[in-house]
Amino acid sequence: MSKHMQRDLDALQQQLLKMAGNVEEAIHSATRALETRDAELAERVIAGDDAIDRLENEVQEECLKILALHQPVAVDLRRISSILLITTDLERMGDLASGLAEKALELSHPPYAEIPARLRPMTLRATEMVNRALNSLVRSDADEARAVVAMDDDVDADNDAILAEVIARMKLPAGEIDSGLALHAAVRYVERIADHATNIAEDVIYLVEGSMVRHLSPAPQPAPAS
Amino acid sequence: MSKHMQRDLDALQQQLLKMAGNVEEAIHSATRALETRDAELAERVIAGDDAIDRLENEVQEECLKILALHQPVAVDLRRISSILLITTDLERMGDLASGLAEKALELSHPPYAEIPARLRPMTLRATEMVNRALNSLVRSDADEARAVVAMDDDVDADNDAILAEVIARMKLPAGEIDSGLALHAAVRYVERIADHATNIAEDVIYLVEGSMVRHLSPAPQPAPAS
Repeated sequence: MSKHMQRDLDALQQQLLKMAGNVEEAIHSATRALETRDAELAERVIAGDDAIDRLENEVQEECLKILALHQPVAVDLRRISSILLITTDLERMGDLASGLAEKALELSHPPYAEIPARLRPMTLRATEMVNRALNSLVRSDADEARAVVAMDDDVDADNDAILAEVIARMKLPAGEIDSGLALHAAVRYVERIADHATNIAEDVIYLVEGSMVRHLSPAPQPAPAS
Repeated sequence: MSKHMQRDLDALQQQLLKMAGNVEEAIHSATRALETRDAELAERVIAGDDAIDRLENEVQEECLKILALHQPVAVDLRRISSILLITTDLERMGDLASGLAEKALELSHPPYAEIPARLRPMTLRATEMVNRALNSLVRSDADEARAVVAMDDDVDADNDAILAEVIARMKLPAGEIDSGLALHAAVRYVERIADHATNIAEDVIYLVEGSMVRHLSPAPQPAPAS
């Protein structure tokens, strides 16, 4: 790889990390807004999504510039195309953080729903996955990426336990349907954020290990990010 | 563009259309399974998702091959990178069709929930959006892509009306929470399929006109697409 290309690639990865930092911050703030019924903070998260969208556009344009200018092949080409794809995962995580903030807004009015205690550890796990998935990319560390994939099982367990609690409360005679649905949606948003982090980690494993084999093998089966 | 590159690009687009055809078929079958409580059909849709995932890998590998072999610049480079991104939208639509089929499975057992009548027209609209978005790409037709973006408002209206009906039924004294939640999820999956079609159409407008329409739509916060 030329020095110029290395410099541009480093800058690109820094931009991507900045985007990921914004996304993590949005997820944390949206969760705090939900827990503290802070409508103003929720509004700020929703307003901040534009900045994440702009970063996506910038990173993607930068990818195209590097492709056109340096015409990379083999593993470098694969890395740039991975970054291009990862930006869409990050952008959708930003949308999901916004969705979480909208549920926080809905739930900031009476009748107040009880926020399940396990939501915070679940969210912390999900943002840790985002953070470590990006680090695994920058360091080309397939083991770290595999650790991220493994964490998704814990998030799925959180998801199942919290949803069971929310649904059980909806079924009570005085069960609140609207706030139950809002909480249900909020938990699913966090679960989908973790799915996107898993997608990124799987891309990294393929990037690091798939590029060592000479013929093109199929990528590892992606987890449903829906 | 060289003749060789044109030939490879044509083949790539045919592969992408094949993938989109599989996705449309999966969405239709999942909806039919839901309406007719056909558990076997639902299982077939779920099993068929692997083929869509394989097509995603094939199309993406083909994109990288074209980039490495022909080193396209300017609009050709942009087209290949758009196709790369569009495959991820199609793959996620496939996941959502699978999700829809899973809800069809859940709802194929008693107590039978009434399937809202407006779900079928909503699904038809969503798959028409997928179809037309891909056609707009192949024909570089920004007007057609804009028509797809406009259709998303109708799908959102379907979504709101059907969800209101589902939630109202959940609130009845004898309201069924589990089947209500399954229906709620099914409708949201269709809505998210339409969101992905909108993403594709916005990519096409950007590709054809070079204007950054993505993320510039003001006011109503879009529901997280994935």
